[in-house]
Amino acid sequence: MINVEIISIGDELLIGQTINTNASWMGAQLALHGIKVSHVVTISDTREAITTALEEAQKRSQVVLITGGLGPTKDDITKHVLCEYFDTKLEMDEAVLNHVESFFTKRNRPMLEVNKMQAMVPEACEVLFNEQGTAPGMWFEKEDTIFVSMPGVPYEMKYLMGAHVIPRLTERFPVKKLVQKTYLTQGIGESFLAEKISDWEDQLRSEGLDLAYLPSPGMVKLRISSASGDQARVAHYGDALKAMIPLYLYGEAEETLSEVVGRLLQSKGETVGTVESCTGGGIMANLTSVSGSSAYVLGGLITYSNDLKIKLAHVSAETLEDMGAVSEETVLEMAAGGKRELGVDWCISVSGIAGPLGGSDEKPVGTVWIAIDGPDRTLCRKFLFGTDRLRTVQMTVLTALNLLRCEILGINIEKKQS
Amino acid sequence: MINVEIISIGDELLIGQTINTNASWMGAQLALHGIKVSHVVTISDTREAITTALEEAQKRSQVVLITGGLGPTKDDITKHVLCEYFDTKLEMDEAVLNHVESFFTKRNRPMLEVNKMQAMVPEACEVLFNEQGTAPGMWFEKEDTIFVSMPGVPYEMKYLMGAHVIPRLTERFPVKKLVQKTYLTQGIGESFLAEKISDWEDQLRSEGLDLAYLPSPGMVKLRISSASGDQARVAHYGDALKAMIPLYLYGEAEETLSEVVGRLLQSKGETVGTVESCTGGGIMANLTSVSGSSAYVLGGLITYSNDLKIKLAHVSAETLEDMGAVSEETVLEMAAGGKRELGVDWCISVSGIAGPLGGSDEKPVGTVWIAIDGPDRTLCRKFLFGTDRLRTVQMTVLTALNLLRCEILGINIEKKQS
Repeated sequence: MINVEIISIGDELLIGQTINTNASWMGAQLALHGIKVSHVVTISDTREAITTALEEAQKRSQVVLITGGLGPTKDDITKHVLCEYFDTKLEMDEAVLNHVESFFTKRNRPMLEVNKMQAMVPEACEVLFNEQGTAPGMWFEKEDTIFVSMPGVPYEMKYLMGAHVIPRLTERFPVKKLVQKTYLTQGIGESFLAEKISDWEDQLRSEGLDLAYLPSPGMVKLRISSASGDQARVAHYGDALKAMIPLYLYGEAEETLSEVVGRLLQSKGETVGTVESCTGGGIMANLTSVSGSSAYVLGGLITYSNDLKIKLAHVSAETLEDMGAVSEETVLEMAAGGKRELGVDWCISVSGIAGPLGGSDEKPVGTVWIAIDGPDRTLCRKFLFGTDRLRTVQMTVLTALNLLRCEILGINIEKKQS
Repeated sequence: MINVEIISIGDELLIGQTINTNASWMGAQLALHGIKVSHVVTISDTREAITTALEEAQKRSQVVLITGGLGPTKDDITKHVLCEYFDTKLEMDEAVLNHVESFFTKRNRPMLEVNKMQAMVPEACEVLFNEQGTAPGMWFEKEDTIFVSMPGVPYEMKYLMGAHVIPRLTERFPVKKLVQKTYLTQGIGESFLAEKISDWEDQLRSEGLDLAYLPSPGMVKLRISSASGDQARVAHYGDALKAMIPLYLYGEAEETLSEVVGRLLQSKGETVGTVESCTGGGIMANLTSVSGSSAYVLGGLITYSNDLKIKLAHVSAETLEDMGAVSEETVLEMAAGGKRELGVDWCISVSGIAGPLGGSDEKPVGTVWIAIDGPDRTLCRKFLFGTDRLRTVQMTVLTALNLLRCEILGINIEKKQS
């Protein structure tokens, strides 16, 4: 296993003005080719920082991918520092110069002296031709370590990685591709999930596979990986996982809950609508984020005020008066009223106290009722989502969508889950 | 000037499954307080990688901020490595244990043994209380270097940084504060904006201030900064900017359009509702993301299907037939119908082709009509937002909210802006 390191150069990264998406993209692309990045180091655009980073990288890594600091402006000194580090000097590369000239001619822009300078490359490097811009990539080798310097502009870096760097690296270091699959769960916290699947996880690890928990609000991704590329074992454990937690496991890879729910509805020829209070339209916005959702989404009612709950969703004034807007009775009437009014097969309704104000001892901030009125039966559940307003809304949206998924599939939902 | 280093722990960062937004956020926040991050190092969740990173950081940095690897599951080993590095052992912290217990009690969830383990902290550290989660922050000092370990969950890390870490660091290392103010614009692209304010920008720079353009879909943030801490000059240029582009400049700092609109509505005692098609409830979800929005938000109609446009918003079948759902006539009827049906002072309506399917030569993908029916007059505009579905929805939401802001303020909206 080789050590691959990324050095990202630029103050804009350190002060958070730019997010280092280059490193993420490179890490993901290399992982797909079985090459794992072990270090990402972000540093300032100074001679000392760059030199030290090169020295440290050389000690521990066989491949060092450097981005940034190759633009035409004055604060870009990477190329000079590379010359020092590799004990070489800049020379004019005629092929690159022609390319830079034609680059400006094609765009009808005058070429400045600083642009011409971009064709000056260190003698000791091999030039990686950059079709997408004026700064070439540069490939160096020093004492068994490969150094590749690329511009930080994302589409130029991506071009150089795809056209030159990845093909050369995979040829030089033929590796068994890492196999990994990601499974998506909703409705169960990281530690509960870990407990529920601990035997399965132990067994998986005993066979040399690896498991990672990747939590985000309302969701936990589970990533199974096999460093030895054992596709069959990964799939085997994935299938076992699906069978074990159907209530929570809703999809794989990059799928969204709305895509999964949409596919289910479309295959059954059924439609969905919502009557939303505390989510303010968020469930419907999520459902309609899917291209083609007009095939099964008809519409919704956002009944933020009590008057509109009565007028639009036909909740009775007595129910609101006696039980309150955040109650089992109210969401049930909202779902039933919405189903009739919207003419849908499935109607989701939600009412809750998103906070931070409006809570009481009996109904604390974060209390949310969700009902789903379907073709055959109605489900209604209460949740407690905590005190952060936006988080509560997001949890409610995801939970409602997952409950709808379970109802469509006929998966029995436990009485208590939150 | 002290050296501050961030160590981000997690394979998900190295393989690009998660983008390291934590490091960007921390860098930006620290920069606001005059503290510059000099290194960001991203490493794997292994004993060796963590130990080496700690050693290297100690050599060059006075402050080392560590995120990640503190969750309750088996793949999190950071705490044990920290114990080794600081030559200490884990002990149960009663205050943290009580907090963890109440965390689960409040959410009505049983506490597991792994959760209890989160209250085990290294003896040598000072605990930073984490109100937002179960993993505490940990503050260590070793040979003139401060090490702070925080969970990688963004909102927990942000809480710890804001409540504990930044206040302590600024007290310990008093620095001249960089003064900066951020102004928020909507409805104009970066290069158009730059052209419109170029004289103002030249003058600002000639006085030694700096300007940064920070674009995101539908918005451009403008950040004016003074390295010498000249608050008065920054405010002077900010005021001039506000007077120059009132149509676009909607707020400052971290304000959202929905907060600004909400304040305006509340001060006038007026209410708002929406009739949404292509945004699927996104405008209302944005409006209700503001705490206290029930004071001026009554509700909305999501009329995704044509039938519901007729039934709920009283659009005439003839208009839909003759002019189509994405037309000036339809959104005008949607806004008027919604205003009556919802009983609101202001009604926003939108209808568009979010794509990627459904476009035509006459109405290409990205065509969106927005209408605003107010107490005195009605506005209606067409926009072309391009071919990316989610981007078009987001642009529509922000544009509709900014148009509402301008209408409430009586700012004259140019006939063409897109």
